[in-house]
Amino acid sequence: MTLLSFQWPVRVYIEDTDAGGIVYYANYLRFMERARTECIRDLGFPRIETIEERTQFVVHRVALTYHRPARLDDALAVTANIVRLGRTFMVFEQKVTHAVKEDLLVEGEAVVACIDKFDFRAKRIPKNLVTAIRSRQP
Amino acid sequence: MTLLSFQWPVRVYIEDTDAGGIVYYANYLRFMERARTECIRDLGFPRIETIEERTQFVVHRVALTYHRPARLDDALAVTANIVRLGRTFMVFEQKVTHAVKEDLLVEGEAVVACIDKFDFRAKRIPKNLVTAIRSRQP
Amino acid sequence: MTLLSFQWPVRVYIEDTDAGGIVYYANYLRFMERARTECIRDLGFPRIETIEERTQFVVHRVALTYHRPARLDDALAVTANIVRLGRTFMVFEQKVTHAVKEDLLVEGEAVVACIDKFDFRAKRIPKNLVTAIRSRQP
Amino acid sequence: MTLLSFQWPVRVYIEDTDAGGIVYYANYLRFMERARTECIRDLGFPRIETIEERTQFVVHRVALTYHRPARLDDALAVTANIVRLGRTFMVFEQKVTHAVKEDLLVEGEAVVACIDKFDFRAKRIPKNLVTAIRSRQP
Repeated sequence: MTLLSFQWPVRVYIEDTDAGGIVYYANYLRFMERARTECIRDLGFPRIETIEERTQFVVHRVALTYHRPARLDDALAVTANIVRLGRTFMVFEQKVTHAVKEDLLVEGEAVVACIDKFDFRAKRIPKNLVTAIRSRQP
Repeated sequence: MTLLSFQWPVRVYIEDTDAGGIVYYANYLRFMERARTECIRDLGFPRIETIEERTQFVVHRVALTYHRPARLDDALAVTANIVRLGRTFMVFEQKVTHAVKEDLLVEGEAVVACIDKFDFRAKRIPKNLVTAIRSRQP
Repeated sequence: MTLLSFQWPVRVYIEDTDAGGIVYYANYLRFMERARTECIRDLGFPRIETIEERTQFVVHRVALTYHRPARLDDALAVTANIVRLGRTFMVFEQKVTHAVKEDLLVEGEAVVACIDKFDFRAKRIPKNLVTAIRSRQP
Repeated sequence: MTLLSFQWPVRVYIEDTDAGGIVYYANYLRFMERARTECIRDLGFPRIETIEERTQFVVHRVALTYHRPARLDDALAVTANIVRLGRTFMVFEQKVTHAVKEDLLVEGEAVVACIDKFDFRAKRIPKNLVTAIRSRQP
């Protein structure tokens, strides 16, 4: 069940490609994090690091399946849909599609954990963020 | 003398930063290339690699001075002003400023050469590109 | 069952870290690919791209679990163990550990597919590579 | 005048290349910083960040000239020669050559400033580092 849908445009620059002529496989994780960051910003948190003091978000688990390659100058659309909201973590479903042709290029899932900045222990997702996410639910 | 002025917005994501808490110094070269690429795209060339067959653009020389650091979530403005147009190269003047506070963060110059894709020899800048640049001159 | 065990040392530089003071999550995919590349090189293929003409290797699927963060200047050990050899793909089990303290930091699995360089279709893994891998089996 | 000569080997991985089939131009700054970091480590400072409390090193100015491209799987040698030692900064001369063919690929200069970690002001290079550098002088 999708709690929140979000999409962010990404343009492929030469910095993103590799000698195979396609986007380097690790760089989709960058694109996906940009989408997640903008999703949270869109919820009303302009500086992600400062949603709550001492709180930080880190990726705990990520899985990607690569279907087709993106290439130089391609315009992409990257989703960051929140599909589960745990006490200390959120699960994002993330798809990268070609903005024009609409082919699905890469799909993945990222489990983002909320931790204490100093001792790296799991902590409860800040209430203001939970409230903002819940308010978007259809 | 500036032949063409262009500016491109860049947002700082966590991928761009380093353990010093600031944007990693090499990443300004990425930002500057994004601005140059969008400058050329804005001149009417949607796929940079295909302005002319067998033609490629490569950076021949680059110099950067770092004044102040950019930080996570900062909104930046990056210029790509063409200040000289040689037979086989272009010189871009590039400034990175903080979009809100307008401080100058980094300034640089990039000499971009036009080469043959296969033998890597210098070649004349394609006429259609020269014409497009000249048409923007004040 | 492990068909082949391989380990590669990686040093963490400032370029690998982010503003959280830890290695940026996408960069473990770089480290893992370095280990896979050196694993193949160690099998007798100095230029990976040229094992067989028109043949290229691409990651089809990847999954990572992040246990503890690596930090600036850390010395890491990255495994690239081949645990399955299909007709057109190989599965690598990949662990990143702290070289001194030996904590497990990140573990993952990468499915690497063999494709035709031009039409991107799956193709049989070159015989010389299969033979080299089989020759290492315990 | 060279106060200290240092050289560090770098292997080109697919992560370092771009769709032009060559090393992406910003990545030479990564290679050069690896060489500088190992140069300092070689002087007896295993954790660069901790040479002196509150002290950090940042690049103030960098200039690069690109002569020939490095390619996938190339073995490179990167120098980090200290050619000037100011009160608050060091100047590194940096050359990237092909380890086998010995062609000069890229040459550059980096001015590295010593700053206070918190207020970002220039400060004197720590004495223990100056002493270590002077001890290497021919």
